[in-house]
Amino acid sequence: MSLIVQKFGGTSVGTTERIKAVADKIIGFRQQGHSLVIVLSAMSGETNRLIGLAKEMQIEPDARELDVLVSTGEQVTIALLCMALKARGQEARSYTGAQVRILTDNAYTKARIQEIDVERMRADLDQGMVVVVAGFQGVDEDGNITTLGRGGSDTTGVALAAALKADECQIYTDVDGVYTTDPRVVERAKRLDRITFEEMLEMASLGSKVLQIRSVEFAGKYNVPLRVLSSFSDGPGTLITLDEDNSNMEQALVSGIAFNRDEAKLSIRGVPDQPGVASRILSPIGEANIEVDVIVQNVAADNTNDITFTVNRAEMSKAKAILQAVAEELGAREVVADNTVVKVSVVGMGMRSHAGVASKMFKALASENINIEMITTSEIKISVIINEKYLELAVRSLHAAFGLDK
Amino acid sequence: MSLIVQKFGGTSVGTTERIKAVADKIIGFRQQGHSLVIVLSAMSGETNRLIGLAKEMQIEPDARELDVLVSTGEQVTIALLCMALKARGQEARSYTGAQVRILTDNAYTKARIQEIDVERMRADLDQGMVVVVAGFQGVDEDGNITTLGRGGSDTTGVALAAALKADECQIYTDVDGVYTTDPRVVERAKRLDRITFEEMLEMASLGSKVLQIRSVEFAGKYNVPLRVLSSFSDGPGTLITLDEDNSNMEQALVSGIAFNRDEAKLSIRGVPDQPGVASRILSPIGEANIEVDVIVQNVAADNTNDITFTVNRAEMSKAKAILQAVAEELGAREVVADNTVVKVSVVGMGMRSHAGVASKMFKALASENINIEMITTSEIKISVIINEKYLELAVRSLHAAFGLDK
Repeated sequence: MSLIVQKFGGTSVGTTERIKAVADKIIGFRQQGHSLVIVLSAMSGETNRLIGLAKEMQIEPDARELDVLVSTGEQVTIALLCMALKARGQEARSYTGAQVRILTDNAYTKARIQEIDVERMRADLDQGMVVVVAGFQGVDEDGNITTLGRGGSDTTGVALAAALKADECQIYTDVDGVYTTDPRVVERAKRLDRITFEEMLEMASLGSKVLQIRSVEFAGKYNVPLRVLSSFSDGPGTLITLDEDNSNMEQALVSGIAFNRDEAKLSIRGVPDQPGVASRILSPIGEANIEVDVIVQNVAADNTNDITFTVNRAEMSKAKAILQAVAEELGAREVVADNTVVKVSVVGMGMRSHAGVASKMFKALASENINIEMITTSEIKISVIINEKYLELAVRSLHAAFGLDK
Repeated sequence: MSLIVQKFGGTSVGTTERIKAVADKIIGFRQQGHSLVIVLSAMSGETNRLIGLAKEMQIEPDARELDVLVSTGEQVTIALLCMALKARGQEARSYTGAQVRILTDNAYTKARIQEIDVERMRADLDQGMVVVVAGFQGVDEDGNITTLGRGGSDTTGVALAAALKADECQIYTDVDGVYTTDPRVVERAKRLDRITFEEMLEMASLGSKVLQIRSVEFAGKYNVPLRVLSSFSDGPGTLITLDEDNSNMEQALVSGIAFNRDEAKLSIRGVPDQPGVASRILSPIGEANIEVDVIVQNVAADNTNDITFTVNRAEMSKAKAILQAVAEELGAREVVADNTVVKVSVVGMGMRSHAGVASKMFKALASENINIEMITTSEIKISVIINEKYLELAVRSLHAAFGLDK
């Protein structure tokens, strides 16, 4: 008898048959006595189709009008699901983002949620209705339609769960949970029953693209228990929660091995040492909206600096050009760029209280003769930058070394 | 320098190329200095596609959810047109029915407009913007999305023109105006420069399906000059106005020949005469939501009644079954049905003040040996029911007899 927010993604509502299957699933939950608020994405492919139409009209489509356009995708699925529910004898009512109302700022195509009115939803739920809300969209205070950006339906789900103080927010997707690593790389990868928000953030930001990062942050901030499950099979999925008592983390030191293939490494070498040099190098990169990931600085014997950092591969050329201008200005020796590197990380709340995770990691990599080019650490993860040719080998050996193969 | 509301139908915005052509047309009008409010339909076929999806979900789709669904069609075209206008350097802003706001009652799928807020549109127009509004849709006072029913975009156009006190409401369609009769039947049919609301109503209701009847009624009620033009060719179209001075009608006695192929005739014969018999026969037909058109009653020498009326062909069997039950109850002799009849009408404001139109009409038909089965007249039209095999012959001979061939 709990209140659950369930979000179904584009592939889960990709055809009329699949929408009917979602309706059947919902009927099952209703029979268990749960109150349900459903959040839907557009049918898979629909948002891209609409963006394609927009680009035929205007090379860079006007952001306000783009939101008017693409928000129709979810409006279609919410209406269809309500019909399917009613055909099964379940009362249901659909709401667009504007109708709920999910108030956002007016940053079209990437709006942020400010406030959600739960009155109407509560009244419907009290009458035994299933409430079906369009994901990904909202409305600004002038009544303009806004969207939350790609993957924003996850955020809608979590935000509704937070506003309604729901017992759980379930994200239905095409995978059946969060895995210890990518099963395409390590066959013996295992589904995790439970993971903390912090671990999930590290896993997600490192390339296990199950959930949109923003929705996990949101869930963590408002302490909304979040569960990732499959639309197409039964199973408990993975529950993402606060690490309230540390208890569940005692057994496993490391919960997963994450990786990211999209890395590129840039070095500026022989920079004469002077105060503020790192900032003078990195500020123009930030100003160009290039996100910098791992940063390492060495002071050499001749008192010059070597600064190395990684960026997304797609931005390497742009970053290199900026860096070359800075190098000239500072009298640095050279700029070197390398787009054949990847990042591999071990992630786990358990490592907070356990020394030796780093040495175990380095030892495992060394035993495979994998050269570590950069290292960065945080409380719950250790990442290394290595050559891309070692990626699979590194992930597999770490997965085994930390006992994730079981 | 006038304020014009222009409505473009589904075929006019049926492809991205056509939407761009509409944008070009609008730019031309802006260059002439006109202020413009544009009303759009969904891309042709889109509404039917959406209804198809709905029917896969629920045999009789829920009306509220159907409106949520189909209203997305116009939301797509308004956004795309605004992008095309902006790509051409013309500022524009789109509004859904809910955003304008076009307040309606809550009769989903056939809502009636109650009020239109013109504040936002006026502010945009004052800034030189083109305002682009989704046709066919509105919102009830609880914020539910409503639609006005098929062809409702014409009504939106006229209603906006009335609310904004526009100088003209232009309906762009795939024909270049209103004709003296169907050019597929009479090759020499001519486009009318001008026609009155009343004549247009008679022409439209009799099968010249250029404009939705409701929008013409609306235009007449609020005296909004209405013009029908082609999206695909230039030309003045046909202006539909009040018959303010009767002046323009002096020349032409009859402005057009209308016809309707969808007629069926039902007779109940030998009904013992008694007060209220017509009502006892026609009430159950009305209660079954069957629309009755021409009605003729004869009292025979034996003091029994013959009542004959016409209905839409699709409803003949249903009407006949009802009539047979009534006949038994009243002790009538027999019920006869005939689905091979059509209606042909001459329409014109001019005939109000001219006797002899009827006799001229009957003479023209007689000279072709066309037997008249029923006759009905009003101030601005005379209709006859004839066998369908004479339809083309009757229309052509009347078109010639009233000088419409010129």
